[in-house]
This record gives sequence, structure tokens and C-alpha cells, in this order.
Amino acid sequence: MADPARLLSDGRWMGAALALAGRGRGRTAPNPNVGCVIVRDGIVIGRGWTQPGGRPHAEAMALTEAGEKSRGATAYVTLEPCAHESPRGPACSNLLVAAGVARVVIALGDPDPRTDGAGAARLRAAGIEVTEGVRAGEARRSMAGFLTRLEKRRPQVTLKLATSLDGRIALPSGESQWITGPEARAHTHLERSRHEAILVGRRTMEIDQPRLDVRLPGLEDRAPRQLVLSSTGDLRRPEDIAGLEGIDHLFVEGGAETASAFLRADLVDRLLLYRAPILIGEGRAAIGDIGLTRLGDAHGRWRLMESRMLGSDRMEVYERA
Amino acid sequence: MADPARLLSDGRWMGAALALAGRGRGRTAPNPNVGCVIVRDGIVIGRGWTQPGGRPHAEAMALTEAGEKSRGATAYVTLEPCAHESPRGPACSNLLVAAGVARVVIALGDPDPRTDGAGAARLRAAGIEVTEGVRAGEARRSMAGFLTRLEKRRPQVTLKLATSLDGRIALPSGESQWITGPEARAHTHLERSRHEAILVGRRTMEIDQPRLDVRLPGLEDRAPRQLVLSSTGDLRRPEDIAGLEGIDHLFVEGGAETASAFLRADLVDRLLLYRAPILIGEGRAAIGDIGLTRLGDAHGRWRLMESRMLGSDRMEVYERA
Repeated sequence: MADPARLLSDGRWMGAALALAGRGRGRTAPNPNVGCVIVRDGIVIGRGWTQPGGRPHAEAMALTEAGEKSRGATAYVTLEPCAHESPRGPACSNLLVAAGVARVVIALGDPDPRTDGAGAARLRAAGIEVTEGVRAGEARRSMAGFLTRLEKRRPQVTLKLATSLDGRIALPSGESQWITGPEARAHTHLERSRHEAILVGRRTMEIDQPRLDVRLPGLEDRAPRQLVLSSTGDLRRPEDIAGLEGIDHLFVEGGAETASAFLRADLVDRLLLYRAPILIGEGRAAIGDIGLTRLGDAHGRWRLMESRMLGSDRMEVYERA
Repeated sequence: MADPARLLSDGRWMGAALALAGRGRGRTAPNPNVGCVIVRDGIVIGRGWTQPGGRPHAEAMALTEAGEKSRGATAYVTLEPCAHESPRGPACSNLLVAAGVARVVIALGDPDPRTDGAGAARLRAAGIEVTEGVRAGEARRSMAGFLTRLEKRRPQVTLKLATSLDGRIALPSGESQWITGPEARAHTHLERSRHEAILVGRRTMEIDQPRLDVRLPGLEDRAPRQLVLSSTGDLRRPEDIAGLEGIDHLFVEGGAETASAFLRADLVDRLLLYRAPILIGEGRAAIGDIGLTRLGDAHGRWRLMESRMLGSDRMEVYERA
């Protein structure tokens, strides 16, 4: 039976690795955004996360920081260390063996066929103790872009909606600034920085001329690529996201027609909702026809994953159930 | 300076009185729904709340239960004890004096001109220690129907809306059963039981033929009076609520036209929102034209007072800011 104290500390260290993994989100495609901490005697001696463009890997960065102290240490990594050499860098499982770590704790197995168990096997063959499955669900959420790409051959799609209590995004006149407050808007900018690309409809681009940048101190350079959905734009229809290269996270920001098109095509994985404590009444709806014909079909599709207040607005994240 | 331990226990006992006060809500008009506990040596010896129709008063009921033990005890009451005799019963301030209580703790002064300070003064004149203002804000919310009647000469109006995440109340076909789950619907029935009357629009009454009753075990007899808003109904326009007798709490349940009419007339004091984790898209909006012309005017009107999950739906209460 597993030692409860060790289970607890494994979970906590993996939490640190997951936090680091989030730093790469939106900048590592086609590689997964992985996080790694190396711990010896209860002290973190190395931290790493997948760097922009996908290299170096998290383990390589953490091992470099830890240096000689890695010998006998435990490495916590959110994804199984890779087993394949590449012209862009060595296999992380080999690096861990060479560094002499005593134990590797892994959140999630790597479904990439070049690794898929081979990384963990190589570690074990070298006499390293391997524990798998620690906080696997969170790791799955953390690397959802990479996993969606592997499983569905397309990016993970987040649809953002900012509405009044009654689901409106603008007055009949089109006035929409502002429905939500500054805290919610800052959160949207942070979310943008975690996606490789933002997509809007042609009308939104022409009429609203949104800046779609990241106006947060220190993250100004994280503005994602901008894409337009239209007959002459980057994408002609939602299904065209399958052809997007280097984009594992797509942020769909508006307007209602674009949102509806993605929902109708069942291509939304994650709903990011902001809801202001106001009533608008007559006005523009957040979404139009999404192809629903029976109320029963609407249920059971979305699961609430996060909910909190941002100033006086509520932010919620729903994911595909 | 007040004794902190006494402040703390005063607050806790007043909490018990406030909970009892809630029992009468929707059944005591034109009297306020008051709660009372009588405490001696840290033990509750009497509990009372305004009875249906308004009599007996909370203090009379609690004193009857406590009997001789009231002598030297402390009474916690959510509203200043009345100072006026009536053919329907004695003045509560006189009853407390006669019972020999040593101390009376009051949440809120009674704005009724027949009492308005005279109740507390009578207690003090009899040598009883009086503390006022304990949890006054909550007492004000608890007796909002009575206070709205006194201050605005009309009932307190609660508008209930049950919507999808995108603010819809039905499909284009009119299908609306069900958007929310059984827990939220049960909560609506509980809310109904706390109002003297429910109002719906003519169309809702004719097309949906809602039962508008209280289908909760033990509360089946608490179904409120039913009113219809229409050119030939109980009310022709929202402003007619001023003429409603014996109704201090009005529950407006639908549909969108009725809701909009009350919002346009600025006659909604409390929004009760249920929000199911579904998207509907094209469909019927919860509210229509409410007379808003500038987005800035929509802000600052509603304050979030309660928020919790009922099954997979979120329930929120907003009140006039």
C-alpha cells in the first residue's frame, strides 16, 4: 500500500509542476506545454517548462538548473518524458537517466506513438522508480490543446462570451462598451495570451475593429495571431480549423454569428463566460441559431469547471461534458 | 465600550429570531413578519413568529411559550415591539414589561408612526435594558415587504427568471420544459410560498396554463393568490400593484412581456435568477424592451445578495442597489 504522506507530497509537487506547465500554454505548439520540478530532501532544485516553439523541453530546463544535485533526486513531470531523439534535442527519458535521478513521478502518459509508454519503460529499465497517474485529470486539462490536436486533428477551441444577466452582448444600436468591468476584461487579455490564435467574424473585425491584443504589464508581446472567419478570410467555415498549423489553442471572440457557427458545428470545447450584473432587455443576443430543435438535446453537454467573481462580474468556464 | 462576547451572542440569538421571522413571510400582511426568541441563562425558553393574518405577534407567542420563566430573561426581536393597543391584541411592549424581562434586543426600529420609538421608550421607562440595531440590515431584508409597503405604498416585487446560459427561456417553438432542474424548480415553489400573490401575463396564463402552486411536502396549502396582468385581468398595468390589498410580497413569474413591463416601470425590487448550464441559441429571450437607451444606465442598479448552486443550476438573488 502506498504511503499516505508520500501520496500527499507527490500531489503537492505535481501541483507546482502543473503551475509551471501553464506558463507555456499557447506558445509551444506543436509540442505539449509540460511542467517539471526536481526535488531533493524537500527542496526544489530545478524548475522547467516547455519553452516557446516547443524546445527546450521542461525536463531539460529543470535538469540544467539542478545540475549535479539531480543525482538521487525526484523529478515531477506533467507528461511522460519523451523517448525519441530529435534533431532539435535529446530524449528527456535519456536525460533523466544520465542525470541519475532516483525517482520520476508522471501525471499523464504521452499518447504520442513515439513515446506512449516507452519513456517510462526506459526509466524503469535504468533502475529508476516510476510513479504514474498523479493528478492526471488536471494534467489532461492543462495540455488539452496538445491532446485535442492528437485526438481530433484540430486545435482546442475556447468560445468567449461576455453578456448581461439576460444574455445580451449589445444594445440594439450596437453599443457594447462596456458590459463587463475592468477585472473581467483583464482576465480576457490573460486568456488571449494563453492561445496561439484569436478568431473573429468578418463583421466584428470590420465594425468593432477590436485590437485583440494583450494589454497586461509584462505580457504585451504575447498577442496571439489574428484570424478572420469569412468567405475571403483565413477560415471560410469552422471546420477549416483542422488545417491550422502551429495552433493548438484557438480563442473565438465574436460576434454572435461566429459563435453560433462554431457551436452548430460542435467545435467548441470550452466556454469562457463573463456575466455582468446588468439587464439590457431588447438588444443583440450572444448567440443565434445553433441547430437545437429539442430542449432535451441541450442538457448534459457542458460541465462547470471554474466559477469566480471578477470585480462585480462572474467568470465561468464550462467544458465539454 | 460594549462587551465583545455579548455582541457576539446577541448577534447569534438575533440570527435565530431572523430565521423564525422568515416563517411568516408572505402570510402576515398588512403586519410585518417578525421573529422573537426569549433566552435565559443561554437557553431558549420561548420562540415566536407573526402568525398568518398578522396575529398573534411574535413576542406574544414567545412569551406564552416561556411563561413564568420570562422573568429576568432577554428577548430578541427583529422589529421594535409595538406600542399601540388594538382590538386584535395588546401592545407587545406592554406584554414584555408585564412579563418582567430584564433586557430586550431589537434589530430594527418600527417605522409605523404608532410605534416609531415609542415601543423602545416604554420598555426603558419600565427599567428594561434595551439594545437596538443588532443585525438591522438583515432585519430590513427580512421584512422588505412590510417596509416597501410603508415606504412606497406598494408590495415588494420579486421577478423570477429561469434561463439558459445565453438568456433564453424557450425554444422558438415555445418549448420550455425544462430548462432548469428539479432542485431549482423546488426552490421556486418555496419562494412562491413566501409571497402573498403570484402574477403572470395573460398569454402565459392562457398558453402555458401554469399551475403556480406549491408542490412541496407540508407546504401544499401555501399556494399564493394568482393574479393576471392584462387589459381585462386583475391588473391592467404594473403601476396598479399600488391598489393590491393584503399583498406585501408579489412574485412575478412570466412571461417576457410581463417581466419587461415591470422592469420598464422600475417596479422590480428583487431579481431571482435561475441559470441552467445549457445553450439554446435562437429562441425566446427572457426580457424584451425595458427602455434602456445607454449602456451606462444599466450599471449600478443591481446588487448581488445571494448566489448558490441548486443541482447543476445557479441561483442568484439581486436586489435594487
